[in-house]
Amino acid sequence: MALSGYQKQVDDWVESVGGGYWQPHEMLARATEEMGELARLINHMYGPKKKKSSEAEQELGEEISDIIWALVCIANSHNINLDESFSKVVDKAYKRDSGRFRKQDEPV
Amino acid sequence: MALSGYQKQVDDWVESVGGGYWQPHEMLARATEEMGELARLINHMYGPKKKKSSEAEQELGEEISDIIWALVCIANSHNINLDESFSKVVDKAYKRDSGRFRKQDEPV
Amino acid sequence: MALSGYQKQVDDWVESVGGGYWQPHEMLARATEEMGELARLINHMYGPKKKKSSEAEQELGEEISDIIWALVCIANSHNINLDESFSKVVDKAYKRDSGRFRKQDEPV
Amino acid sequence: MALSGYQKQVDDWVESVGGGYWQPHEMLARATEEMGELARLINHMYGPKKKKSSEAEQELGEEISDIIWALVCIANSHNINLDESFSKVVDKAYKRDSGRFRKQDEPV
Repeated sequence: MALSGYQKQVDDWVESVGGGYWQPHEMLARATEEMGELARLINHMYGPKKKKSSEAEQELGEEISDIIWALVCIANSHNINLDESFSKVVDKAYKRDSGRFRKQDEPV
Repeated sequence: MALSGYQKQVDDWVESVGGGYWQPHEMLARATEEMGELARLINHMYGPKKKKSSEAEQELGEEISDIIWALVCIANSHNINLDESFSKVVDKAYKRDSGRFRKQDEPV
Repeated sequence: MALSGYQKQVDDWVESVGGGYWQPHEMLARATEEMGELARLINHMYGPKKKKSSEAEQELGEEISDIIWALVCIANSHNINLDESFSKVVDKAYKRDSGRFRKQDEPV
Repeated sequence: MALSGYQKQVDDWVESVGGGYWQPHEMLARATEEMGELARLINHMYGPKKKKSSEAEQELGEEISDIIWALVCIANSHNINLDESFSKVVDKAYKRDSGRFRKQDEPV
């Protein structure tokens, strides 16, 4: 499913169940909270007190998706098409690189 | 394009240009950095010192996509299929809600 | 107690109980995790689903202090004197302002 | 200087120069932005593309202090005494530890 398809899925949920979109700062705070949960999991998996878990990779996918969900809410409430935005970011990554090869002695 | 398609695009870039995946904590730090840029933009758009900008919404899409890029790197380096993970998160959201309706007096 | 006094308190704990300082990226991830808990609390206090709590302000102080603790660990492991650093930040804030008054038409 | 002394310094600046405290979510977004700058610096110092810099440690102290400043603003606008809060966090750390020693086979 395209990102726009996921955007539609999230929109359906927000409108039918979630009670509408929150304020931008509130959605940002939610994304910050979810980023904190990802950080905790990364420290569990790779940090000083590793905890073995066969479920860690599944959890990892869901923590990442929780952050994407919060970000999709911000995008939806601004009528942003993430397929377009993400394509621009991919293009920028390649252009930045081609510039890097032309001027190898420049700071990145 | 499906999330797995974007995962493939990012993987192509990382392998051909980016020099391989970073360590998990390094990718997490990059995601944290990008989240900080989103926070700055949200404060510019809606905070105490609003700055008008016709480009703010385009920027917003790209800041969100920068975070998703960093998250896709974490997912890719763990062989996580984000289409599957995101579907689980959507399912959880609906199930959590149906539970909420059965027990309206419970804390959420 | 000065910040350097708190730095000493944290150092005593880390050396006697905590098993030494973590790696920089691990301490950063901990700070990110604690920032996420602050974000969750701010959304509880002021967000779309406010929860009344007589203890919220006490919690708020402790969430803030948890972040400061994580930051103090990063500072300590780099022999940074936070009293000096914080004084520089205060000085910068005043200088930035006086510049703002000299050049009112400049971007901040 | 005690944390309460720094709280007073920040309060003086906010009231005389800064135009008063922002809304809680706005201060949180600022703290998130500053955390992002710390993450960027940690990746510069220890990440995949290390940049040597004799000034990195001074910068590190100031990035940490920028976050503390944002947190002090949140505390001040809620009349929180950070000396008290931080002492509680220190006490909790020691108590959590003594519990750990009584029940060594328990999960932390």
